[in-house]
Amino acid sequence: MALEGVDGSGKSTQAEILAASLGAVLTFEPGATWLGRALRRLLLDPAPGTTDPAPGTTDLDLDVRAEALLMCADRAQHVARAVAPALGAGRLVVTDRFSGSTLAYQGYGRGLPVTELRQLTAWASAGVEADLTVVIDVPLGVARQRLARAAPDRLERLDEGFFSRVRDGYLELAAEDPVHWTVVDGTGEVEAVATAVREAVDRQPGIASSGQPGGRCR
Amino acid sequence: MALEGVDGSGKSTQAEILAASLGAVLTFEPGATWLGRALRRLLLDPAPGTTDPAPGTTDLDLDVRAEALLMCADRAQHVARAVAPALGAGRLVVTDRFSGSTLAYQGYGRGLPVTELRQLTAWASAGVEADLTVVIDVPLGVARQRLARAAPDRLERLDEGFFSRVRDGYLELAAEDPVHWTVVDGTGEVEAVATAVREAVDRQPGIASSGQPGGRCR
Repeated sequence: MALEGVDGSGKSTQAEILAASLGAVLTFEPGATWLGRALRRLLLDPAPGTTDPAPGTTDLDLDVRAEALLMCADRAQHVARAVAPALGAGRLVVTDRFSGSTLAYQGYGRGLPVTELRQLTAWASAGVEADLTVVIDVPLGVARQRLARAAPDRLERLDEGFFSRVRDGYLELAAEDPVHWTVVDGTGEVEAVATAVREAVDRQPGIASSGQPGGRCR
Repeated sequence: MALEGVDGSGKSTQAEILAASLGAVLTFEPGATWLGRALRRLLLDPAPGTTDPAPGTTDLDLDVRAEALLMCADRAQHVARAVAPALGAGRLVVTDRFSGSTLAYQGYGRGLPVTELRQLTAWASAGVEADLTVVIDVPLGVARQRLARAAPDRLERLDEGFFSRVRDGYLELAAEDPVHWTVVDGTGEVEAVATAVREAVDRQPGIASSGQPGGRCR
């Protein structure tokens, strides 16, 4: 299963707790493989002199389709080398971000057509998808507070319009597919949110109790 | 327009000559943008310690879908930042490799379905495609000789089975779409091949003589 949410939602903490409570393999995107780590370095910290000049901005001059394709390259490697082998061995898998991030960030956030991104990410993951995606939902104020405490550099880059589009995107994706998506209020204490996440997983037919793997092939 | 061919076919030399003779913008894939240069470095020379161990091989452990997605990320950036602006300014564009390389290498070479790769690369390039793709065709022996002279390190990595699949792929792609593809025998002297390439371009309606840009949107 996949945990999704905006930066500062607390989903990484919740993914850790959930994986431990289920005895599941914990993994994440982007960056869990050698390719993902290299792409992450490339996007967060390209070597000096490698960027074409982009006067007046510290952001990378990255085409939005190129961004989506890089995220999907990371996903393809992640599924082929980590997720699919774990599922094949009968393990449960909990991933901190998966296809939902592409739909929310590059789709709702950056404006690429969500239907096209669905096809792209399905191709990248060779059809492996989460049987349940849990969105940890928090409003801007909560995300801001948590980032201020944990990652002030990421707080500086928080763009409110983009945040709202991504958050609303997650809620819309969940509303459209209530069988495979659920939303948990992430504003409370860590333990309370963890309990709500676990309850959502336990309500999902055939995951935790039956030992079914946390992914399916279609 | 795009020049395609196997490593050692001489297509880069031919692309240079063609672009100069037409007064066209000369560009290439992969690696013409900051992102492309970074991806090229990542694939050809990842930093020590960044690869998961792959005992007994010096090759990267790269999933084939991930490879296709990286090439298409390079293409998206290349089209958005270099090709489309040049076409928009009314320039002719000659590119050394384009979508055909994805179809030939990741499709025929690595075995991914060509129809799926066509969709992927069309999405990456936002519909920009070459109005003419010229395949510079050479047999294994000629490619081997040229690589031995110019790039002995690339000769070492030449896999004959892979070479044949890619070469045959190019020929099949050209046979399937004779309106937009043509094959030029690349075994002769540079000048003779250049003349044949230029004749092929001049036969194509509405490129060189009319000043039409070397790409089209569909």
